[in-house]
Amino acid sequence: MKIDYAMLTDLYQLTMAQGYWDHGVGGTEACFHMYFRSYPFKGGYAIACGTDQLAEMVESYRFDDEAIDYLSEVRSAEGRPLFGRDFLEYLRGFRLGVDIDAVLEGTVVFPNEPLVRVRGSILECQLLETALLNCINFETLIATKAARVCQAAEAPVAEFGLRRAQGAAGGVWASRAAVVGGCASTSNVLAGQMFGLPVSGTHGHSWVMSFPDELSAFRAYAESFPDNCVLLVDTYDVEQGVRNAITVGLEMRERGQRLAGIRIDSGDLAWLAKGARRTLDEAGLSDCGIVLSNDLDEYAIKSIRDEGAQVAGWGVGTKLACAYDQPTLGGVYKLGATREPGGAWKDHVKITGSAQKLTTPGVLDVRRYFYDNGLIAGDMVFDVNYGVGECETIVDPHDALRRKKLAGMRFEPLLAPFARGGNVVLEASQRDALAARDRARAGLATLDETQKRMLNPHTYPVGLERTLFDRRQELVARLLGIE
Amino acid sequence: MKIDYAMLTDLYQLTMAQGYWDHGVGGTEACFHMYFRSYPFKGGYAIACGTDQLAEMVESYRFDDEAIDYLSEVRSAEGRPLFGRDFLEYLRGFRLGVDIDAVLEGTVVFPNEPLVRVRGSILECQLLETALLNCINFETLIATKAARVCQAAEAPVAEFGLRRAQGAAGGVWASRAAVVGGCASTSNVLAGQMFGLPVSGTHGHSWVMSFPDELSAFRAYAESFPDNCVLLVDTYDVEQGVRNAITVGLEMRERGQRLAGIRIDSGDLAWLAKGARRTLDEAGLSDCGIVLSNDLDEYAIKSIRDEGAQVAGWGVGTKLACAYDQPTLGGVYKLGATREPGGAWKDHVKITGSAQKLTTPGVLDVRRYFYDNGLIAGDMVFDVNYGVGECETIVDPHDALRRKKLAGMRFEPLLAPFARGGNVVLEASQRDALAARDRARAGLATLDETQKRMLNPHTYPVGLERTLFDRRQELVARLLGIE
Repeated sequence: MKIDYAMLTDLYQLTMAQGYWDHGVGGTEACFHMYFRSYPFKGGYAIACGTDQLAEMVESYRFDDEAIDYLSEVRSAEGRPLFGRDFLEYLRGFRLGVDIDAVLEGTVVFPNEPLVRVRGSILECQLLETALLNCINFETLIATKAARVCQAAEAPVAEFGLRRAQGAAGGVWASRAAVVGGCASTSNVLAGQMFGLPVSGTHGHSWVMSFPDELSAFRAYAESFPDNCVLLVDTYDVEQGVRNAITVGLEMRERGQRLAGIRIDSGDLAWLAKGARRTLDEAGLSDCGIVLSNDLDEYAIKSIRDEGAQVAGWGVGTKLACAYDQPTLGGVYKLGATREPGGAWKDHVKITGSAQKLTTPGVLDVRRYFYDNGLIAGDMVFDVNYGVGECETIVDPHDALRRKKLAGMRFEPLLAPFARGGNVVLEASQRDALAARDRARAGLATLDETQKRMLNPHTYPVGLERTLFDRRQELVARLLGIE
Repeated sequence: MKIDYAMLTDLYQLTMAQGYWDHGVGGTEACFHMYFRSYPFKGGYAIACGTDQLAEMVESYRFDDEAIDYLSEVRSAEGRPLFGRDFLEYLRGFRLGVDIDAVLEGTVVFPNEPLVRVRGSILECQLLETALLNCINFETLIATKAARVCQAAEAPVAEFGLRRAQGAAGGVWASRAAVVGGCASTSNVLAGQMFGLPVSGTHGHSWVMSFPDELSAFRAYAESFPDNCVLLVDTYDVEQGVRNAITVGLEMRERGQRLAGIRIDSGDLAWLAKGARRTLDEAGLSDCGIVLSNDLDEYAIKSIRDEGAQVAGWGVGTKLACAYDQPTLGGVYKLGATREPGGAWKDHVKITGSAQKLTTPGVLDVRRYFYDNGLIAGDMVFDVNYGVGECETIVDPHDALRRKKLAGMRFEPLLAPFARGGNVVLEASQRDALAARDRARAGLATLDETQKRMLNPHTYPVGLERTLFDRRQELVARLLGIE
């Protein structure tokens, strides 16, 4: 299958687009921001990911003839064509002209700050919403989960969740995001091919089952792959499997080869790993590592390590590739401001009776401030049309009493140019998954250890620049008539 | 992006394939079964889905030159090419020759019975594993979730989870699976185009925010879409939103049009829906329905209905499209038997110290038995090489004491021919999503109400044909040396 990104959208984006077009307001300039509202996995950070796919989307964005034919057949509840012929002709010739700014993949990010800012006609901003959210939400989620898993593992983690991933493309981008978040490799061959990721994998249970006995299966595998030999020892009985692996490992040693490892994929992994370690050491195979897999996540890995198991590598599938304990990030894409061509920006907020869901008005940018020791001190969301006030103070978007003064500290911009006039301007190095993994590693090193705690982490301060906070309060009061 | 299904696999499938090929056993005939082990969502049934994508996969299965070039560059840990040149040339010319049998989409299915059976050379069976599991696992999961949501809703459900779905293709196939499971429509335009699904959607908050005030936004929308007018009333304040919608609804009535509905997307939905119903009725707009959305699932829907809210339609996104409370099905693909060309079938099991994970040996088929009243009585898994014993009794695969006699009842085969000699033989009607939805509806009607209960449902009996159960016990005893 091939993904047509222009059609990868909710129908209401197209009905709204036609509505704007009907009313001659489709050309109104708008500024939308994509952000998430709360920390995923009850953690203290997230790792941004998804702009490589977003670039693919922006670059290929066209309504082709098949799409227009299909849309011309969509009917209203009363059986009439939903879309007008003129609007469809407009769509046929449509080309994106948006300016987009986004955080680079691998950047450490937090709730309530824009990861992506889209400026363009309100019509095209609207058209991009669904597909943009789809890729940034999902990949940021998986990169974050991978970072947590790798943090717990402290040994190479191979991602191999494709068989349990949500759809084919879900699996491919999940594998990429897992590597961005810190995984050493993926089992996913297509992802390896598409993105230049390291791939890994040895054999499964069916290999063992298809030979007359386990020992001959191990011997055959060692013969075919002497360089990469990790034997799966739990098809029938782990203790016997380890003994068979030792037989093969000693045979390999006589041939000048090395049994790289054994893998255990069921049972009580900590207990089995400790027993296998002893048995391997007693047999003189202390250079044979133990790889563990089976329903692992950061909590299971931490528990196994806490019990003292010595683990050379981890295989993590299901719970990483679909972020089992929280399978969506819940990021949103909200209108911040509009202006008529040549006019001034007008702020917008959505209220809906919940402080947590209150949006931030304006055309926003983000600065990250640093302490002298290199750790990050706070992120400031500000409106580019007003700039940063002299006091350089941030206010928690949902708690007026929580403030922090950042004046005088070194800062960096968080959003980087992504597209100008509809053309992607990211450099190749800004799209590379392995460079993003380096960025994530460097970014995590700028967090205090307490912010990386797995349980009840210290939360990092992200706030609205003080005058922006005040303007938002005034706008809400005016809209609710409580001035 | 385009999915290359041959490369959508775990690396170890390719290393195993090369290993089989190296040892001259790649042509050994094998029989693999795909099944899941436990009920998803703690429910009492699942709805099979995924064979349409599986057909796309089988039809397009080729290793193209780019794939071969990529694989020739993959290196072992020691830096040597992982794959031999002869094997890669073999892959370049490789064509699937498998026979596949599978349950039709929309079929009600249960744990521990094969949904897909693949027979062919062990090499090609192995190559298919990952991609097959990816599509059947995910789509069956989502179709099942949709069936549960629709069962709770008892009014049309629109799926609109694309923005929170796991990847682009995940979103597309999720939308299709949601319709198979019972959804009336999807917001996903690409899924509508690809699979002929009903699409639906009106407008979002940004529409309202981009007009000077809510009332003019509503008027503009009603003007553009008089046939399909559902107004979202919670951008600023729901009570005022309902009053504005009433103003527009009465204006529409004067023009001979009808306000189809209002949608509430935040706050306490049950309370707001009851209040809005009263307000609409008092204004004479009793023909204007109420649509609810916002983080709904089967439990939230049931609770809202239990409180007496009258709801004309439901929009369900995140929690359906990624099956939030259980984002994977956990289906597996296990070797049942092998034979040398011209030889007899040899049974295989995987043991791994856990009765729940013990596989079933043989070349398996499934019969579904019915009571005279049309309700289903039990599913029998049997080995086609031994047939069904005279007593027609099933034994729970994990509980030798749980048995049921099915002799004399009407039965139907569950697996249907899907591919022969590598060619898909499904008819077009067997790939149609709307026909699958009809099949699901009919199948759910053959379940006892107690099996559809949301909490602690009555579990349906699936068992091994008695002699198959006994053969499995003997094989395990032999392998563990406890004869």
